[in-house]
Amino acid sequence: MIDTHIASAFDRDLETIQALIMKMGGLVEDAILKAATSLETRDEELAEEVRDNDRAIDELEEQINEEAARIIAIRQPAAVDLRVILCVMKIAANLERIGDYAKNMAKRTTVLSQMAQIHGATASIRRMAKEVERMLKDVLDAFVQRDAATANAVIHRDEDVDQMYNALFREFLTFMMEDPRNITACMHLHFIAKNTERMGDHATNIAEQVIYLVTGEVPDDKRPKDDRTSTDPNVAPA
Amino acid sequence: MIDTHIASAFDRDLETIQALIMKMGGLVEDAILKAATSLETRDEELAEEVRDNDRAIDELEEQINEEAARIIAIRQPAAVDLRVILCVMKIAANLERIGDYAKNMAKRTTVLSQMAQIHGATASIRRMAKEVERMLKDVLDAFVQRDAATANAVIHRDEDVDQMYNALFREFLTFMMEDPRNITACMHLHFIAKNTERMGDHATNIAEQVIYLVTGEVPDDKRPKDDRTSTDPNVAPA
Repeated sequence: MIDTHIASAFDRDLETIQALIMKMGGLVEDAILKAATSLETRDEELAEEVRDNDRAIDELEEQINEEAARIIAIRQPAAVDLRVILCVMKIAANLERIGDYAKNMAKRTTVLSQMAQIHGATASIRRMAKEVERMLKDVLDAFVQRDAATANAVIHRDEDVDQMYNALFREFLTFMMEDPRNITACMHLHFIAKNTERMGDHATNIAEQVIYLVTGEVPDDKRPKDDRTSTDPNVAPA
Repeated sequence: MIDTHIASAFDRDLETIQALIMKMGGLVEDAILKAATSLETRDEELAEEVRDNDRAIDELEEQINEEAARIIAIRQPAAVDLRVILCVMKIAANLERIGDYAKNMAKRTTVLSQMAQIHGATASIRRMAKEVERMLKDVLDAFVQRDAATANAVIHRDEDVDQMYNALFREFLTFMMEDPRNITACMHLHFIAKNTERMGDHATNIAEQVIYLVTGEVPDDKRPKDDRTSTDPNVAPA
């Protein structure tokens, strides 16, 4: 009887902490979409909203960490339950990083609004951001459902995001070479594109946590984690 | 008697895990310096060594996480001891990220070796990297000594690294505007500079963990975490 009681108390704790993760995930998804929209439409009010909302995301991470420490201390969970708690903390850390990148994108909106527009660039970034947001949504659903297959699919979708980034990198080089007045704007846009690609990496990290949680195994480290521009000498003829 | 026995077993566990952190820190410091040197001297063999050694860093992080989970499961530590274990895991995660940035720097060495050199840029990056390596060394010593004052000093030194980065950002813009043939090389160098600045942010994160460990309080979030180029419209007249 006592065992059952303790187990269900732990399960309730786990539900609470998972609910916090989903709440945090919702805020982060919102931040990604709003940051990309603010960039495309040069909406500084929306950008400010994203910057302000990042505090709520950071606070949720702290709350999740405190709750996790509290659960470990009080429930003294067995190895397998402990694994869940540690995974949750890692997922929260990855969400916090994605939120930071969205905030950074929103910050650059203000700077870029003062410069000439680079044709098509912000629309491409918005498409990338939308794909990352979908990956994040799916991987958080996979977390709640303990669905390793969906998590694995998210890892593979990250390759598309990497390809979108590589295409943008080349595009920015071309814009800069065509007209030096584009250089400053392109440097900022390039950062945003790179940070969006990194958001995808963090969604992939979450997917790996989900797979570890379900299967007990860390997925192959063979996936292309980096953008190819770091090793490809032919990124663009200089 | 039993309590003393349990406490000292936990202390021994803690020493083991701290030793792993110091070992990991040593490898990461080495990676930072070697990556920066390989970039400056165009030493592709050294760059390859850095890329290969990153695996050992990743494996140490895994080992630390497993050891931490084992200690929590076996020792069922009280809240204050649990805090130490969770801090250690966060420090390991930050070290792993710094190692990744060093690996990325080493990867770009190969690409940059095929391009015209940008006067002084790699030397400036090497100085930045050296400062980050010193911050990392000091903050890990502060961790072992439970020295919040030194950790706090590291946080403030990160402002110098941010300034070095901001100066380099402006320099790269100038080089690119002067001669479009510099654009591709400058894009890579800019990434490396940004990633070095991020290494400093991670050293700062470790410092915050140390302060939390010693004082039980999270330091003020008032420090400038971001580079100023994301919000300063005057980064360079376009």
